[in-house]
Amino acid sequence: MEQIPVLKLGEFLLVSIQVELHDELVVSLQDDLSARLEKTRARGVLIDISALEIVDSFIGRTLGHIAAMARIMDAATVLVGMRPAVAITLVELGMTLKGIRTALDVDKGMALLRASLDDSGAFSSSP
Amino acid sequence: MEQIPVLKLGEFLLVSIQVELHDELVVSLQDDLSARLEKTRARGVLIDISALEIVDSFIGRTLGHIAAMARIMDAATVLVGMRPAVAITLVELGMTLKGIRTALDVDKGMALLRASLDDSGAFSSSP
Repeated sequence: MEQIPVLKLGEFLLVSIQVELHDELVVSLQDDLSARLEKTRARGVLIDISALEIVDSFIGRTLGHIAAMARIMDAATVLVGMRPAVAITLVELGMTLKGIRTALDVDKGMALLRASLDDSGAFSSSP
Repeated sequence: MEQIPVLKLGEFLLVSIQVELHDELVVSLQDDLSARLEKTRARGVLIDISALEIVDSFIGRTLGHIAAMARIMDAATVLVGMRPAVAITLVELGMTLKGIRTALDVDKGMALLRASLDDSGAFSSSP
């Protein structure tokens, strides 16, 4: 069952990360996600990490890479569902998740994506 | 990381099953889901099994129980993302997933839920 499904939700894609990420899984997720972005022409990606109790530097970097890849394919990425303890740890570790926007849950993430798509064709970094 | 997140998508809840289900996990999922149904007053539950390569009789029964529980809490359940190989195996095993509606993907499942809510006169607040 080592595969992370990419679900299409209207004009966006949703990735719910529930299992421990390792190199191979990350590569397959990036492959999958880029293929789905091409196929569905989605304009946004929501990555749900509500199941993750720990976000270490590897996961943080991986999320950054995924967001960068999505951006090149003209899609914005929003990280949703982060647990409070994870947020505290990230700050303590000095990880700022630069280039990734966050929202409290999927609904808020979708609203954020819609708002930024409405504002302009491009996804600006200002809040 | 042994927890299956329940995500709120507008008026529905989404459960993406990616890990092997065992008794304890099923119980915690049912607890979570019923609590979320009560809290969010969601009218529908989408269960995504696109990550599952095998659906055995235990999983089939579990899905049936979840759907029955949701029904008692006034929510419809739609199973989405079933792989073709899984469908073939279910038929060969004689498992009909009675009482569970299915759809090919999350988008179609949401459309199905919306249509059934519109049909029923009980829920008349949305067009």
